Amino acid sequence: MKAFVMKRIGEVGWMEKDRPACGPLDAICRPLALAPCTSDVHTVWEGALGDRHNMTLGHEALGIVDEVGSEVKDLKKGDRVIVPAITPDWGDEASQRGYPSQSTGMCGGWKFSNFKDGVFAEFFHVNEADNNLAKLPEGMSLEAAVMMPDMMSTGFMAAENARIPIGGSVAVFGIGPVGLCGIAGAKLRGAGRIFAIGTRAKPIEVAKAYGATDIISYKNGDTVKQIMDLTHGAGVDSVIVSGGGPDILVDAINVAKAGGAIGNNNYFGKGMFDKDYLPIPRVGWGFGMASKDIITGLCPGGKVRMERLAEIIKYKRMDPGLMATHVYKGLDKVEDALMMMKSKSGDLIKPVVICE
Amino acid sequence: MKAFVMKRIGEVGWMEKDRPACGPLDAICRPLALAPCTSDVHTVWEGALGDRHNMTLGHEALGIVDEVGSEVKDLKKGDRVIVPAITPDWGDEASQRGYPSQSTGMCGGWKFSNFKDGVFAEFFHVNEADNNLAKLPEGMSLEAAVMMPDMMSTGFMAAENARIPIGGSVAVFGIGPVGLCGIAGAKLRGAGRIFAIGTRAKPIEVAKAYGATDIISYKNGDTVKQIMDLTHGAGVDSVIVSGGGPDILVDAINVAKAGGAIGNNNYFGKGMFDKDYLPIPRVGWGFGMASKDIITGLCPGGKVRMERLAEIIKYKRMDPGLMATHVYKGLDKVEDALMMMKSKSGDLIKPVVICE
Amino acid sequence: MKAFVMKRIGEVGWMEKDRPACGPLDAICRPLALAPCTSDVHTVWEGALGDRHNMTLGHEALGIVDEVGSEVKDLKKGDRVIVPAITPDWGDEASQRGYPSQSTGMCGGWKFSNFKDGVFAEFFHVNEADNNLAKLPEGMSLEAAVMMPDMMSTGFMAAENARIPIGGSVAVFGIGPVGLCGIAGAKLRGAGRIFAIGTRAKPIEVAKAYGATDIISYKNGDTVKQIMDLTHGAGVDSVIVSGGGPDILVDAINVAKAGGAIGNNNYFGKGMFDKDYLPIPRVGWGFGMASKDIITGLCPGGKVRMERLAEIIKYKRMDPGLMATHVYKGLDKVEDALMMMKSKSGDLIKPVVICE
Amino acid sequence: MKAFVMKRIGEVGWMEKDRPACGPLDAICRPLALAPCTSDVHTVWEGALGDRHNMTLGHEALGIVDEVGSEVKDLKKGDRVIVPAITPDWGDEASQRGYPSQSTGMCGGWKFSNFKDGVFAEFFHVNEADNNLAKLPEGMSLEAAVMMPDMMSTGFMAAENARIPIGGSVAVFGIGPVGLCGIAGAKLRGAGRIFAIGTRAKPIEVAKAYGATDIISYKNGDTVKQIMDLTHGAGVDSVIVSGGGPDILVDAINVAKAGGAIGNNNYFGKGMFDKDYLPIPRVGWGFGMASKDIITGLCPGGKVRMERLAEIIKYKRMDPGLMATHVYKGLDKVEDALMMMKSKSGDLIKPVVICE
Repeated sequence: MKAFVMKRIGEVGWMEKDRPACGPLDAICRPLALAPCTSDVHTVWEGALGDRHNMTLGHEALGIVDEVGSEVKDLKKGDRVIVPAITPDWGDEASQRGYPSQSTGMCGGWKFSNFKDGVFAEFFHVNEADNNLAKLPEGMSLEAAVMMPDMMSTGFMAAENARIPIGGSVAVFGIGPVGLCGIAGAKLRGAGRIFAIGTRAKPIEVAKAYGATDIISYKNGDTVKQIMDLTHGAGVDSVIVSGGGPDILVDAINVAKAGGAIGNNNYFGKGMFDKDYLPIPRVGWGFGMASKDIITGLCPGGKVRMERLAEIIKYKRMDPGLMATHVYKGLDKVEDALMMMKSKSGDLIKPVVICE
Repeated sequence: MKAFVMKRIGEVGWMEKDRPACGPLDAICRPLALAPCTSDVHTVWEGALGDRHNMTLGHEALGIVDEVGSEVKDLKKGDRVIVPAITPDWGDEASQRGYPSQSTGMCGGWKFSNFKDGVFAEFFHVNEADNNLAKLPEGMSLEAAVMMPDMMSTGFMAAENARIPIGGSVAVFGIGPVGLCGIAGAKLRGAGRIFAIGTRAKPIEVAKAYGATDIISYKNGDTVKQIMDLTHGAGVDSVIVSGGGPDILVDAINVAKAGGAIGNNNYFGKGMFDKDYLPIPRVGWGFGMASKDIITGLCPGGKVRMERLAEIIKYKRMDPGLMATHVYKGLDKVEDALMMMKSKSGDLIKPVVICE
Repeated sequence: MKAFVMKRIGEVGWMEKDRPACGPLDAICRPLALAPCTSDVHTVWEGALGDRHNMTLGHEALGIVDEVGSEVKDLKKGDRVIVPAITPDWGDEASQRGYPSQSTGMCGGWKFSNFKDGVFAEFFHVNEADNNLAKLPEGMSLEAAVMMPDMMSTGFMAAENARIPIGGSVAVFGIGPVGLCGIAGAKLRGAGRIFAIGTRAKPIEVAKAYGATDIISYKNGDTVKQIMDLTHGAGVDSVIVSGGGPDILVDAINVAKAGGAIGNNNYFGKGMFDKDYLPIPRVGWGFGMASKDIITGLCPGGKVRMERLAEIIKYKRMDPGLMATHVYKGLDKVEDALMMMKSKSGDLIKPVVICE
Repeated sequence: MKAFVMKRIGEVGWMEKDRPACGPLDAICRPLALAPCTSDVHTVWEGALGDRHNMTLGHEALGIVDEVGSEVKDLKKGDRVIVPAITPDWGDEASQRGYPSQSTGMCGGWKFSNFKDGVFAEFFHVNEADNNLAKLPEGMSLEAAVMMPDMMSTGFMAAENARIPIGGSVAVFGIGPVGLCGIAGAKLRGAGRIFAIGTRAKPIEVAKAYGATDIISYKNGDTVKQIMDLTHGAGVDSVIVSGGGPDILVDAINVAKAGGAIGNNNYFGKGMFDKDYLPIPRVGWGFGMASKDIITGLCPGGKVRMERLAEIIKYKRMDPGLMATHVYKGLDKVEDALMMMKSKSGDLIKPVVICE
């Protein structure tokens, strides 16, 4: 079968691979819709996961079930499914502790294009299929639905973690697709005022549609100072970190009220100070005593999460389709889509590939 | 001064009273807008609080500050303020434990028209004014704003307590104004599907505007069975109880998934079984083992809560003005408004009195 | 193989059964130590689960692995293991929602002697063996260790759910073995004063050893009134319900402070009022507004829970062996042990059967 | 009156001051017992709070009420009281948000020897006396009781924040008095294995008495590696940070399991990298995705907290008196006690001054 792979750091391409084998609890799927992720870009061109050889890329997909293992009960060939980016081992020690995304080890629920081949191929393998795959509701837009596996799940997570009180104020750093879902998530948790920090025109338009009330740009000066001024020195109840450099936590903490929470869903691709560190500001953090808590996580995966996200779309609580700025047709276009993601040109938010 | 009082159980009327005295931390306010509450009706005609003599009624108000005590710092005569129905003693033992609405004793934060004279008078008294009164934002509709002191705060509370997951399903029992705010609150916490149980036309219209996706009426059969059928036997993630008789918890528990939470903001005016009991269904509750938790509370009060609710209105997250179906002008019309609340006639949701 | 069964409601006995079959994820174990549970008594003589025919009894066991399925990785024949009373399906919908004990349906994680044959047999079957069985630490007393599968896990759960603040006061209704573990659990969560409600001498002795500071007996008058007097009318921060009749929640709620939580681990074997209801007191519950929340659950199961409980024993945080008042030798003695549990005679807390 | 002050950075001494004035809600107290804190040392000799002139030092005290304001109801002259180090403004905005220690601004609940004169004087001033002062139980050892205002409250806080599961494993960095109370707090929350990181003999002895099961010293190599080896690579469920240099969070995060929480009660007196930063390790933190959350805070204050801590002592859940290694008699000895704290010589844990 055909697969689009990372050959080594800095190089991608197509290659022939064997169709994956299906264990008793597994499923093999064909792609129905795909989307490249910024982290695919980090993986290939920044070597963020370390070196990988001939690893199939991609972890955002809708699929069509092609084969199921002997113990699979709820799925059959032909089912159209939502494939979460994170597919936990649900009985694992970390899952029992309440952290399925960390199953089998730190960030171990992230298997596609990390610990095994990803979804950019004619066929891909899903572990614990009954527990990880959700049925795709009939009639749902594929462009919208393919935002569930990672963008919505990751973006919402930070909003869920940021202890947003009903009517509280939120600052969201970054208006890429995850940041936009952080904005939508903040609104879904009942935020009042939402500051979105970013500069590009198209994402700003979507940020407003998703609930941002104030757009803050570094072009108008220090972003923290702008928010402090607009809140008369109070800062915000909650902060969502979905972008920025290795020192973005400095801004995040400085803009939070004492007692405010920082929900992070940023993937920190690099650190600082020759030691791969991420800095916290001592004074802004109240010398460690200001109750500015930092809550993090990896995208929640699994069937139930995907089913719930589908309800958000079904009942029009949010329209993730607004983020699908570039739509391609056919699996072979996944390369163009990834290159578009890499270039981040113009009015891009998220490129999507419809396969069937 | 003129005050509208409960003379005794079953009898209301106007009487002359002394203007209340202002302690060092207090404020005296004139009413700017008022609303009668169903609990005023319970208080007078059901004797729900026990007997009261010549007690001024009313606990939902916007006000104009007329006098402040010597220790008050943030307020001055002429300020237009939101007056929370619940005005805690913020340093009290229960407040320090995290339950300010229970300060000075069970439900002790509820002072107006309960432990002291209420707001239906030319002047009324507010304890700990700096901590309890919030500035009314300029330009805000009074009809909308007067929903904050009780309706929004109480309605949202049950949604906040019901552990609603993003995309989760919710059943709301009751579509009076508190139930409608429960629906709005469920949407504000990120609910997907929202079942509203009720029958009257006007509230149903507002329920849909606030986010209800399915309207369930007892006229079509057992309401629990209807929801179980619509969810294919699963039940719902969260339940909000904002109405119903003394056995409404039976339905609430039976419709919840194992692991689902019941957020109650119902004021139970009477019990059952000659012993003033509220029943829980043994089998539906999993013999006490189904993790169907019952989380309750009294309307959150205080300045910060009111300020946050004002943000909800300001940023158009919800329009509480839709509930103000009947608007009266002048303090003397508060009697008509209360009688309208008692009769619950026709298309009533909430009567409002604009005083100035 | 030989199995000790419930033949029908009211009748027990030995019978020959086939050795259970081992699926790919399963294990078959021999019993190493067993304990009958009060709920076995309810099951047989009260028909609490409904009728059952020839169902092997028992759900509290230590075991020796005799066979493992093809997909089992962490276990092998001969391993000595802790067998949790509750063995969830870890990937199930309820497990993904955070309620593994409710997997496959309400209370569905309770399989032994409920939905399938129990552990009182020469061999018994364990589902998802890698996720549910924990290694028994070497050198650990079997009498102590057999308290982990149900008594400790269930007893601690209510303490964990009762929102006990460090230094807070707790009332524990019931001093059977689960109630005693509730007392120990309250101490393990940092309780200050602990009221234990019960009358029998031997359990009182153990209650004190586990941290109870005040023993309250109905023989000295109304138990709620006694605690209210001892707390100068304040009541307690937290309540644990581990025994009592169908109206025990009335006492539990009446003794709680406003804002106090009730953690229930009682298995309510019967209800009241011809409708199988459990009553809540309307006035003591603050008309539904006193923030006296009722948090329930079914014994937490699984490998990680058992491993953590083993740490409690290993590091001498609690000695569950004090509860093993009656020790029998040999599987065939399980009948005597059950009859002892039924009779609750004299100084019984918990009978234990050592099989090897 | 006589007061022991910080004259400027690096210089202390005695001076005459006016007796503080008593506002309507306030109390004036005489010291009954005092203890210097490491933060007094930081304040004077490191200038950690910035420059201060003639500020009375000290924030750990038991007191005797000498005068109360006109609005004070629960206290009278002669009452013996526990004086919390943190005395919040209970109605403040941050208090209403749930963070009283942050009232009036970041860390604003810390008034003594920070924003106003401290307790090392013949008389000292307490704001909101009814809400902040707790009665000292009769017969309680003063050496033990004086640990409540700061040491126990601060130490326990990190344990409460570190999400310790019953039976979970904990690592505590630092075995000064706050770290020792972190160990005791971890045991009080139900920890199983507790690693204490430190080297001095006397604190190690107390650490063991308080529940530490493993003592880890840097003298035996990298402390993180030692704990990882002892846990077979798993790390710990919870981390308490109560000491160490500006990069101690690096160790704390590296030793936590994915999903483990870090409870910080360290007062970071200085930062790194010429920018006053505190570093987080990017890789050990899972690139921001490992759910290793960092929860912080400032010592909880107020009457209820003190009353609960008194219960811990009364019911012998912990004996804080073990930390009082050096006991002085008379207010004038507070200078010697502070110098002892500065020198940290020999077997010191905490010096205490008994004033009457």
